[in-house]
Amino acid sequence: MKASLSGPSSVEPVAGNGMLNRRTLLQGAFIAGTAGLGASSASAQPLSVPSWMKMPGSGFVPYGEPSRFEQKVVRAVLSPPNPPIPGVGTARTPLHMLDGMITPSGLHFERSHSGIPDIDPDQHRLLIHGLVRRPLVFTLEALHRYPMQSRIAFIECGGNSFVLNAPEPRPVGIALTHGLLSCAEWTGVPLSTLLDEAGVDPSASWVIAEGADAASMSRSIPLSKAMDDVLVCLYQNGESVRPSNGYPVRLLVPGFEGNMNVKWLRRLKLTTQPAMTKDETSKYTVLLQDGKAWQFVFPMEVKSVITRPSPGITLRGPGFYEISGLAWSGNGSIRQVDVSADGGRSWAPAVLQAPILPKAPVRFRAAWHWDGSPAVLQSRATDDTGMVQPTRAAFAAERGLRGVFHYNAIASWRIDEKGEPANAYA
Amino acid sequence: MKASLSGPSSVEPVAGNGMLNRRTLLQGAFIAGTAGLGASSASAQPLSVPSWMKMPGSGFVPYGEPSRFEQKVVRAVLSPPNPPIPGVGTARTPLHMLDGMITPSGLHFERSHSGIPDIDPDQHRLLIHGLVRRPLVFTLEALHRYPMQSRIAFIECGGNSFVLNAPEPRPVGIALTHGLLSCAEWTGVPLSTLLDEAGVDPSASWVIAEGADAASMSRSIPLSKAMDDVLVCLYQNGESVRPSNGYPVRLLVPGFEGNMNVKWLRRLKLTTQPAMTKDETSKYTVLLQDGKAWQFVFPMEVKSVITRPSPGITLRGPGFYEISGLAWSGNGSIRQVDVSADGGRSWAPAVLQAPILPKAPVRFRAAWHWDGSPAVLQSRATDDTGMVQPTRAAFAAERGLRGVFHYNAIASWRIDEKGEPANAYA
Repeated sequence: MKASLSGPSSVEPVAGNGMLNRRTLLQGAFIAGTAGLGASSASAQPLSVPSWMKMPGSGFVPYGEPSRFEQKVVRAVLSPPNPPIPGVGTARTPLHMLDGMITPSGLHFERSHSGIPDIDPDQHRLLIHGLVRRPLVFTLEALHRYPMQSRIAFIECGGNSFVLNAPEPRPVGIALTHGLLSCAEWTGVPLSTLLDEAGVDPSASWVIAEGADAASMSRSIPLSKAMDDVLVCLYQNGESVRPSNGYPVRLLVPGFEGNMNVKWLRRLKLTTQPAMTKDETSKYTVLLQDGKAWQFVFPMEVKSVITRPSPGITLRGPGFYEISGLAWSGNGSIRQVDVSADGGRSWAPAVLQAPILPKAPVRFRAAWHWDGSPAVLQSRATDDTGMVQPTRAAFAAERGLRGVFHYNAIASWRIDEKGEPANAYA
Repeated sequence: MKASLSGPSSVEPVAGNGMLNRRTLLQGAFIAGTAGLGASSASAQPLSVPSWMKMPGSGFVPYGEPSRFEQKVVRAVLSPPNPPIPGVGTARTPLHMLDGMITPSGLHFERSHSGIPDIDPDQHRLLIHGLVRRPLVFTLEALHRYPMQSRIAFIECGGNSFVLNAPEPRPVGIALTHGLLSCAEWTGVPLSTLLDEAGVDPSASWVIAEGADAASMSRSIPLSKAMDDVLVCLYQNGESVRPSNGYPVRLLVPGFEGNMNVKWLRRLKLTTQPAMTKDETSKYTVLLQDGKAWQFVFPMEVKSVITRPSPGITLRGPGFYEISGLAWSGNGSIRQVDVSADGGRSWAPAVLQAPILPKAPVRFRAAWHWDGSPAVLQSRATDDTGMVQPTRAAFAAERGLRGVFHYNAIASWRIDEKGEPANAYA
């Protein structure tokens, strides 16, 4: 199990099957052991001058786009066969093609129950009513007058990773296993500010949030959460929220299941009881072994996934690789991520990329020397409440594998002799 | 000078002309004093059902775009009349339409000397040569093998704000005064890793970086900086760097003047002396009163600007307003931002939005009660080295106003009785 590396002691394995010391990344110490990662010795000849240096380039455009060479970097769209109405399904973030913590807004995941409404912001209204002293209606212009806050936060669909509940591992990649997880810098008005202005009746303990899509997607949010850190968002990664993410105004309910972050927000009703909407009773509940279900499981539990390598990214022969991924918790901040190359028998701590923010994903990185034989890569996150991401077996023992929501068990990528990663259960 | 507010003590002014206590933002205490910011009391009638709720919305797209109602949110393109070649000039970030810290990649500012090259990543090469033990050539595939780091950082063109050197204030908005400042999460390989692999000769003290544009834009970077925190970037806000920002690979030289962050990076040559390229001799120097110039002034000095209100955003009558803006320093982190509503006679501390990161912009927010009479808004940033953003007079006394680079003085927006902000000298 010892990696065949020469070099400084920091390149020595710290866990099985080639997991290297963290200092390998921090000090670039792998160089001594690997003699390069694909760089070639340059000849004495100068670089040839490419065609694009021989003529002026293109001019300015008002709003920039990705390179035409990056057209494969798109969301994976998954719609049910013969959807009853257009726009039912999901568009999933291609996490294996991205790096860093932020998801570009064009690739933020999307779950729609009735397609993307084409909302005219001048006509849109937000109503706060129910158990309040005075009901209020907000135009977009009015909302823009209020003091705002910004925060970097993940949103994860409650149904993310449900494919991993299948009895046998399906031959799918990370967009389908984990692509309902994205991150943006969100800016908006604290919901507490608007509720304070409306004057919440002491008898109220829930807020029913309704979207302006054709499905009127609605969820019940505890008043305590609404008064804590919920934002009525107008901006996503600096600019106005994108249509598929709730333009012109959506909720950010940090850490809570995705569809509570109601898009196209039009109505907030203060009540004594939850509304028991379709999307919090028949769906978005945790179905247990015995057929009973947990309702109102709001925070997305601690979780992580290795984004590179992952299916579709083939290793080019034995040698050094950086293992990189994302970890997140709806209950707080990520405290630690461990990475295994031997299917969980041994673990090496990963480097966590600053800033480490509550209810935001953290990019982790670990150093690995692949010896060319089959391997099983896993990551395991721990949050600052002490919660540790469970194994698939532990998850199944507690909850069973009948449900489709809140699956947060450790995921495995099996690497074969050809260097091809595949979804696996280990 | 006392704002005519009733309400809790935290709404009392803390500086002239209506600047309110920071607690006003943090506790929503302005509500008691302002009776709402444009919200209307709702009638007993339910909201009307808009057309977009009566039919399914649109389906999924692989790569999302902003709403069609946001077509005004574009970069301001400034090209010289009759440019010698296409693509010479700038595209500037519309900071007044954005919020938060991140600039969406489609709106990141752009300065081009010969247009945007259309680079095929499979053909692109990066050469490291000169005073190294072994020259190396990297393909894009090779670069992707190396351990990476991510960081949120600003890039500011050395010429940002030079219009404020004009003898009289020009009638321009913030895109033209400050729009050569943007921010992204950048991910790439530490340059030190690649230089270590090439083996830097002890006699080397500079790195000459060259771009693959038709201008071969080149700058000399001190080796000490190159070995410190420079990244060879492959990702911008999660996805591949955009063409206008250096696709497929660019330098991030945190805090240093914009054009040192060489785009379309093709060559790094280790030398004993700077190359004295056109863009570090005839340009990108600090011209002083006496006709002499400072050369190699690398870090962009501490600076800030109020983005809202700013020209083009008219105040809708007296009352409460949030004053919001950005502060940054190429020398470190922002420690404090103060805001004045009386042209700098008195100052109130602003709230700084976490996370506060070195060499990244910080969003600041302050509470203001506008009484409807003329006002002059200013912001003043202090960084953690103790540097304080100078007044225009102090800047002029030290450097004069003949140059076009590194202008970082306090900017002023004059608000007239109609609530219209304008560029002003105060």
